[in-house]
Amino acid sequence: MKNILIGQSGGPTAVINSSLYGAVMKAYETDSAVRVYGMVNGMEGFLKGHYLDFASLKESEELEKLLHTPGAFLGSCRYKLPEDLTDPVYPEILERLDELQIGFVCYIGGNDSMDTVDKLSRYAAAVDSKIRFIGIPKTIDNDLVQTDHTPGYGSAARYVANTVKEIIYDAEVYDSKSVTIIEIMGRHAGWLTAAAVMAREENGNPCLIYLPEAAFDLERFLEDTQKALETTENLVICVSEGIRDQEGKFICEYDSQAGLDSFGHKMLAGSAKYLENYIREHLDVKVRSVELNVCQRCSASYMSYTDQQEAMMAGAFGAEAAFAGETGKMVTFQRVKEYEIRCRLKDVHEICNLEKTFPKEWITGNGNDIGQEFITYVRPLMKGGIQVPENENGISDFLRR
Amino acid sequence: MKNILIGQSGGPTAVINSSLYGAVMKAYETDSAVRVYGMVNGMEGFLKGHYLDFASLKESEELEKLLHTPGAFLGSCRYKLPEDLTDPVYPEILERLDELQIGFVCYIGGNDSMDTVDKLSRYAAAVDSKIRFIGIPKTIDNDLVQTDHTPGYGSAARYVANTVKEIIYDAEVYDSKSVTIIEIMGRHAGWLTAAAVMAREENGNPCLIYLPEAAFDLERFLEDTQKALETTENLVICVSEGIRDQEGKFICEYDSQAGLDSFGHKMLAGSAKYLENYIREHLDVKVRSVELNVCQRCSASYMSYTDQQEAMMAGAFGAEAAFAGETGKMVTFQRVKEYEIRCRLKDVHEICNLEKTFPKEWITGNGNDIGQEFITYVRPLMKGGIQVPENENGISDFLRR
Repeated sequence: MKNILIGQSGGPTAVINSSLYGAVMKAYETDSAVRVYGMVNGMEGFLKGHYLDFASLKESEELEKLLHTPGAFLGSCRYKLPEDLTDPVYPEILERLDELQIGFVCYIGGNDSMDTVDKLSRYAAAVDSKIRFIGIPKTIDNDLVQTDHTPGYGSAARYVANTVKEIIYDAEVYDSKSVTIIEIMGRHAGWLTAAAVMAREENGNPCLIYLPEAAFDLERFLEDTQKALETTENLVICVSEGIRDQEGKFICEYDSQAGLDSFGHKMLAGSAKYLENYIREHLDVKVRSVELNVCQRCSASYMSYTDQQEAMMAGAFGAEAAFAGETGKMVTFQRVKEYEIRCRLKDVHEICNLEKTFPKEWITGNGNDIGQEFITYVRPLMKGGIQVPENENGISDFLRR
Repeated sequence: MKNILIGQSGGPTAVINSSLYGAVMKAYETDSAVRVYGMVNGMEGFLKGHYLDFASLKESEELEKLLHTPGAFLGSCRYKLPEDLTDPVYPEILERLDELQIGFVCYIGGNDSMDTVDKLSRYAAAVDSKIRFIGIPKTIDNDLVQTDHTPGYGSAARYVANTVKEIIYDAEVYDSKSVTIIEIMGRHAGWLTAAAVMAREENGNPCLIYLPEAAFDLERFLEDTQKALETTENLVICVSEGIRDQEGKFICEYDSQAGLDSFGHKMLAGSAKYLENYIREHLDVKVRSVELNVCQRCSASYMSYTDQQEAMMAGAFGAEAAFAGETGKMVTFQRVKEYEIRCRLKDVHEICNLEKTFPKEWITGNGNDIGQEFITYVRPLMKGGIQVPENENGISDFLRR
């Protein structure tokens, strides 16, 4: 059997390394003599000659740590191959693959990574190469088409929902009216912000949830807030970083005419910060904003067990598909009722460069809330916690390259 | 036996409710006929007649959920009693306590709360009241004197160290030089920021750590950063929100002459944001800042098992001390070698309104690093994780008032 090369590309997720683990183990399981290589820093790094062999890691039995290590063990890149398939980079890539006797390439990533899989598989077909290219999905944004959801989303959703819940408990300790505005990742798609609805308490918190898919109106926002404050003493509001108005202008860009910092840079605030100042200007109430940070995409603390297991399955299924001779396909998830997930292959050309936004009909309450359909959809993806092993200092024991 | 009243005051921590649980259970254990009351929103709420009886909660066996519920189950307040003990509020409080036949008051909180315990115990002594007042410490800042550490600090330190580690993994995925500046809570004391050293990786990250206790110099910071970038590709730097210069001016106030937002408000950035802009202005490198949010004080995800158990012990010890006739004292922790903690009582008058800052001799590396003494000190406090029970949605199952 020819060798296999696996790469990671795009932003980190909590479980991108679980997909890597799944693919690596499937390869060794299929043929114990196969060489399993990893691109270091994706296709960009591979082109510079950066790769590793998993053999010694497999020996050391440290590989299982990948299942709880966030980030991107192999390193990542943001690199787009040229549209023109006659570009010299294509024969160069094939040459490098031949040097290592690679017959199978699995690329774990989002939209742009699927574009890479698409182009390489088309180029290989055009030059009669037998090398197989398979895409394994990954993104916290959940914005890939043709799949029920993407590995990485369930853990990010679990992080967001649980963190919003903790912030609600933090916001409610004092006996005085307040507004807390939480900003959640997602420039174009509201999937991650929508997960905040899973934190809902009896008093309605988070009472208002705004996604990029519903046009945002400042005056209506003010009315919504005033009304919610009538029944909820410590109001918690969740907004996507990408909320925009009827004309498509981002709310976080409203401030672009505003002040410069001491270095003369524009002080661009996020959408939550802008809304914090807006509420302070218009209502006599204590207000603060919280921007959930990069932990949304890299925290192991709220990794979803379901997401972890599915990510591993997607990796294994992708390697298996390549060995079976498939190419130019991405692994997708099909949902079977009462929650069971089956992997399928879909033509990567129908997936790359497309974006699956949040269904408008799942947005309720005049654009400020999320309906039951989404709750039914997302609930199983978030289920189950994992216990991250810790070292002698009480610190997560991750695997480092 | 007379009844007992317990209150919570000041900012939330992950384990303030564990102390509450410890005190409540100790009371029922001591005398099953005792009535255990909780002030709702601290002394301020109690003065408005807000309190609850734990009896029905105890029946429901839901009380154990307090052990993993962050925030402040009873609600909190920021309220300072007048200095003048002849103020009419003092007899009013005693009257309200008498109405409920309270003989023992435990107040869980930080500096200001100990001030409340101090004044009430002095007033009670002056008017020959037999009511006993005991303080139970709580603060993520770890800034109370006369105690080895405070309940709440261990969990916050564990959260900070593990989150910094996750951010390091996030920062290192791309193959291009970068600087990430993380801002950590602590306006006056650097204990929490120092915990970032526990996340240290082989490449040195987080390479630079700055506390309020060492004068911060912008030019030296730039030199430190340039030097660290020579050996570490993706540099992670941790700063306390309260870093200040030789003259005592906060770095986050350097921007106060800067621009106004669209509403005419000053756009005050945090210290990390200011330093991000400073680095961008002076070095040709990708730079970003991350402000760890309120989860530092309210996340259950990285609660330290050691902290949880000690908080419970402090609560139980406090109630027991009150029953034994002690008053005007705070529960403190004394460390026995190889890590074992014993509770003691100290005069609250010697504790309230004082602040224990980070020892200057534990700051190393020309003011940009933390020494081994601190690592030895903090390691046991952070040890052990807990598994937060989840509901059918995969969401933490907390206890609500």
